[in-house]
Amino acid sequence: MSIRRAPLLVLISVLALSSGGYVRAQTKTNWLGHYREPAARLVAEATANAFAWQRLALLTDSFGHRLSGSPQLERAIRWAAEEMKRDGLENVHIEPVMVPKWVRGRERADIIQPGPHELVMLGLGDSVGTPPEGVEAEVLVVQSFAELDSKSALAKGRIVFFNVPFTNYGDSRLFRMSGPSRAARHGAVAALIRSIGPTGLRLPHTGVLQYGADAPQIPAAAVAAEDADLLQRIAGRGQRIVVRLRMEAHFEGEVESANVIGELRGRELPEEIVVVGGHLDSWDVGAGASDDGGGCIVTWEALRLMKKLGLRPRRTVRVVLFTNEENGGRGGLAYRDAHRHELARHVMMLESDTGVFRPTGFGFSGTPRARETVKAIASLLAPIGATRIESVGGGADIEPSVREHGIPSLSLEVEGEYFVIHHTPADTVERIDPAHLAKCAAAVAVMTYVVADMPHRLGE
Amino acid sequence: MSIRRAPLLVLISVLALSSGGYVRAQTKTNWLGHYREPAARLVAEATANAFAWQRLALLTDSFGHRLSGSPQLERAIRWAAEEMKRDGLENVHIEPVMVPKWVRGRERADIIQPGPHELVMLGLGDSVGTPPEGVEAEVLVVQSFAELDSKSALAKGRIVFFNVPFTNYGDSRLFRMSGPSRAARHGAVAALIRSIGPTGLRLPHTGVLQYGADAPQIPAAAVAAEDADLLQRIAGRGQRIVVRLRMEAHFEGEVESANVIGELRGRELPEEIVVVGGHLDSWDVGAGASDDGGGCIVTWEALRLMKKLGLRPRRTVRVVLFTNEENGGRGGLAYRDAHRHELARHVMMLESDTGVFRPTGFGFSGTPRARETVKAIASLLAPIGATRIESVGGGADIEPSVREHGIPSLSLEVEGEYFVIHHTPADTVERIDPAHLAKCAAAVAVMTYVVADMPHRLGE
Repeated sequence: MSIRRAPLLVLISVLALSSGGYVRAQTKTNWLGHYREPAARLVAEATANAFAWQRLALLTDSFGHRLSGSPQLERAIRWAAEEMKRDGLENVHIEPVMVPKWVRGRERADIIQPGPHELVMLGLGDSVGTPPEGVEAEVLVVQSFAELDSKSALAKGRIVFFNVPFTNYGDSRLFRMSGPSRAARHGAVAALIRSIGPTGLRLPHTGVLQYGADAPQIPAAAVAAEDADLLQRIAGRGQRIVVRLRMEAHFEGEVESANVIGELRGRELPEEIVVVGGHLDSWDVGAGASDDGGGCIVTWEALRLMKKLGLRPRRTVRVVLFTNEENGGRGGLAYRDAHRHELARHVMMLESDTGVFRPTGFGFSGTPRARETVKAIASLLAPIGATRIESVGGGADIEPSVREHGIPSLSLEVEGEYFVIHHTPADTVERIDPAHLAKCAAAVAVMTYVVADMPHRLGE
Repeated sequence: MSIRRAPLLVLISVLALSSGGYVRAQTKTNWLGHYREPAARLVAEATANAFAWQRLALLTDSFGHRLSGSPQLERAIRWAAEEMKRDGLENVHIEPVMVPKWVRGRERADIIQPGPHELVMLGLGDSVGTPPEGVEAEVLVVQSFAELDSKSALAKGRIVFFNVPFTNYGDSRLFRMSGPSRAARHGAVAALIRSIGPTGLRLPHTGVLQYGADAPQIPAAAVAAEDADLLQRIAGRGQRIVVRLRMEAHFEGEVESANVIGELRGRELPEEIVVVGGHLDSWDVGAGASDDGGGCIVTWEALRLMKKLGLRPRRTVRVVLFTNEENGGRGGLAYRDAHRHELARHVMMLESDTGVFRPTGFGFSGTPRARETVKAIASLLAPIGATRIESVGGGADIEPSVREHGIPSLSLEVEGEYFVIHHTPADTVERIDPAHLAKCAAAVAVMTYVVADMPHRLGE
């Protein structure tokens, strides 16, 4: 807490003839107490109706999914900027970003033998395609990188299938990211992975891969958990499996996209900035409702709610709807580069990109002092049960800026089925409860407003 | 209960100097008591291992889905007959049945405006296709037949979309069965329905339609619940919706298929027959595990278990794996016709075609006297919790025979997610718990064995 920025609290501290700890507790309570009323108003306004859900549905219904380089994303970008202006946000503009345009095209995978079985699959993002006639080869099933290494001789000329049960996204995505190049180094002609997520209803999960510079680029796809089980069962019977994979996937160069930005200018310290946001791009399946239309809406809501209630904080609050999070992260990089001159004045950055289900609180990365303050602010969210502060916060889009300047970073944390529908056709607005979404917006609004308005800068 | 067939029980009745009710209860208890030991053995054997699940997985993994007229179904038929012989069943043979060969081909539906959105859909079984360029038209959303009638003028030249929330299969399937012709009578060029099932994970449900003779045949498809919600939301905003539907669906005449039959010949009354079965055909999505590979396996298991335990009942037990239940019912009709001479000697028919999840008991249609006996037999299933007897039993394949001769009919009843995955790509073996499947087999085995073996003929 900064004495410099809180003269009234200093006075109280001086008057309190007590231990330092007691004094700190008193002063914390006092500055925080000031925010109970506006916090309650923000929560009440956010949860009074289904505005956020209706706006999210309008986004997903009007434009559908929004892959980088698609006309849908560009239309959504322009729509968002227009809507922000209609909300009365300030300095609304878009900041151009060049993004890769990857196109899935038609794709299909079949077990030719035994069967035939059409596999439920999705090509991995950024994958190369196959020749028009497809790639047809025997399948080598492995359950770990170590098993692949030990069976190197068997991988040559084969389709390597990584059947690794979903544990958590961080661990499981390694197979999606680096599995294809790992297989290619052993001479594989294509790679398949088990979808990264719990078993759904024959639901394939796409997501980006990352080719290693030292390996041939081979086509790669994810199959639904049930199809993975099928391949494993057949292999377990000692049967030979032949799969044919056909993918038209390819790149069509780079095209212009943009980050969308809107602000509420700070009333006292407008040069100090609190950034909130999500990413407007999505994969080209589903409607990108949870990933990450909802994150865009709830962070944008923070500003709309403040504006509507006439709550103009001391510092500037800026919402950024990033582009190209899914397959390039160019929006986050472009923001860092375009705003490098003012990153030092970024007080806090908050991203919502792990779903907008029942909010539990926030993840936080920053100094212990800042963490204490964030915890205190979160206590204002007791009425909606979002008081928990997790040990790590941040997000892929804010990460480049955060890393460059050690900016305190938050992520909205929720409890829900994010990874059930993540990167799948089932990522639609139906799965989001309007009441949960409203609470997410309320949580972000309260945290953002208080950090932007409180007497001391976060962490000081 | 038949005195003629139960001389020992008559003796007991005579000796019991008591009321008729008391006598009946005594005799019932006595004949039933005799079956406690074999029932326990059947349950123990069925639940001792995962044989049934392994066999079901072998069926679905080896052949995949099994639409009438497909090579997969014919291979599965031959495999089943071979396996029955290997089990030691008797009189194993196939009985030829001509079935329609409907081919789905490629299909796709898109909301052209607003959007574009690719709809997750499945053409309805037996639907006609569209011209190669598709059918493109404005959509009229209705939520009932009455609403369609009241908006008749708006239906002409449109694609009529029936968005009726799933209630129960019996009611909801009316829209699938007769919706397309109802729409065609108002001049619609195509029909869409909301999938018949609870909202899944963007899961479309196919199923057969039935064209009326008096209406033009228009192409028809089911969309996933989420896609139905999307269409409804757009319509609710007063926006014009244009959909393009492309379907290659068509018939390729009739081809030969077959019912598979295996028996355990009765040791005393071989001419009296107890039939159990399911249908081996499936829709051309998923693996037909719950619908109705599982039903085939658990009824077949009844015979295998008796054979394995050396339990040869008084009467003949016959398993029938019917063909073409899904889009024609030809297997059930062919069975009736081929066995007309012996239908009068069919003591009971039992079908399992509503899933093989946790068994709760049986549905039963027949005389009150027969119902009492069935209830008594079901009491032997208390150890596996399958004692409930519902008010109606039967099944689509046994129905023609049952109707012709008033044969007491049973259906295996279960609690589970049958309609979540019904007629969808998610109908795979993963969704079936080996322990539940084993209990289903046990329940069918016990009921079948006792009905086939008990002194009196069911209902007498």
